[in-house]
Amino acid sequence: MLYPGNLKKEFNKNINYANRGMNLEALVNEANKYYEINEIAIIYKKPTPVTITKVTYEKNKVLTKGQLQSKSSLDYVGVYKGKYLDFDAKSTRSKTAFPLSNISNHQIRHIKNILKHNGLTFLIIEINNEIYLFKGESLMEFIEANERKSIPYEYLKNKGEKIDLKYNPTLDYLKIVNKLYFKGERYEK
Amino acid sequence: MLYPGNLKKEFNKNINYANRGMNLEALVNEANKYYEINEIAIIYKKPTPVTITKVTYEKNKVLTKGQLQSKSSLDYVGVYKGKYLDFDAKSTRSKTAFPLSNISNHQIRHIKNILKHNGLTFLIIEINNEIYLFKGESLMEFIEANERKSIPYEYLKNKGEKIDLKYNPTLDYLKIVNKLYFKGERYEK
Repeated sequence: MLYPGNLKKEFNKNINYANRGMNLEALVNEANKYYEINEIAIIYKKPTPVTITKVTYEKNKVLTKGQLQSKSSLDYVGVYKGKYLDFDAKSTRSKTAFPLSNISNHQIRHIKNILKHNGLTFLIIEINNEIYLFKGESLMEFIEANERKSIPYEYLKNKGEKIDLKYNPTLDYLKIVNKLYFKGERYEK
Repeated sequence: MLYPGNLKKEFNKNINYANRGMNLEALVNEANKYYEINEIAIIYKKPTPVTITKVTYEKNKVLTKGQLQSKSSLDYVGVYKGKYLDFDAKSTRSKTAFPLSNISNHQIRHIKNILKHNGLTFLIIEINNEIYLFKGESLMEFIEANERKSIPYEYLKNKGEKIDLKYNPTLDYLKIVNKLYFKGERYEK
């Protein structure tokens, strides 16, 4: 669970990160827009969970006061070829390993649950200026077999699937989803 | 699209409704909790979309100021047997018809989009003290074939599937989903 201190850090990180230009989240959002326009999939970012405590009206706006809740699920949800997709995008500055502290216990439980119901769930991980799609199944396997608090870069390289950047969309992660989960099926383009 | 006036009405309606005790939304939430505990499905309510404009910290809380956004999708999302589910629960006090003003144009576009990608999308409609599951396909069919601004009760009775209340969960709507979309498959119980 994310405690207020972590929430604060998380929130500030997002703000700082946004100023660094085209980040991982921006790439995912760009791809999602492309997928929607080209009728490949519908994938969207879940709204930040806020418990609204007060509402006021001002001209043509509805203003709210509320309290930020910790996220117990992943950032993105959507539908591709009828299947349920649920995933997150995470960056690390470490060059040698992806720290598991990037994922809360609630999120791990959520991934387990989605797998149980045959949903597609994974992480998109940025490490060493490379981007990998790392399946929820592989994450669970790693957690259950290891005492380590981070996933070594070499492990991600072996078990993950590299997503090469290209033109339009820059981060075509659904192509990899199609390869990993819909073997042999045509990737609609 | 929901304009601020509508947003205000919508928000107040929810508050008033909440005081009337066990309403349709509460029944859906109860069923969703049951499905999660019994490992039948993972279905949750989407958070209210708020654009956060200011964050302050107070003891162990993160307080937010923001602006309410209009909902362009449906209230519930989830995974059942790997499939993507996206639906809404709507009540009407009318005894003769379900007014289409209950559904925004954005929501209709969303339903169309989900259908295009083979997601399961439907409305749970409370009318005349009865509850019906009304498929997104039937809704689109009605809208395209009719000039009317409301769906007659008889039409819902014919094209919808009645959900009878029972014990635990009270509104076992997934049983109907299973019947309509997974013909012949065992309903996990």
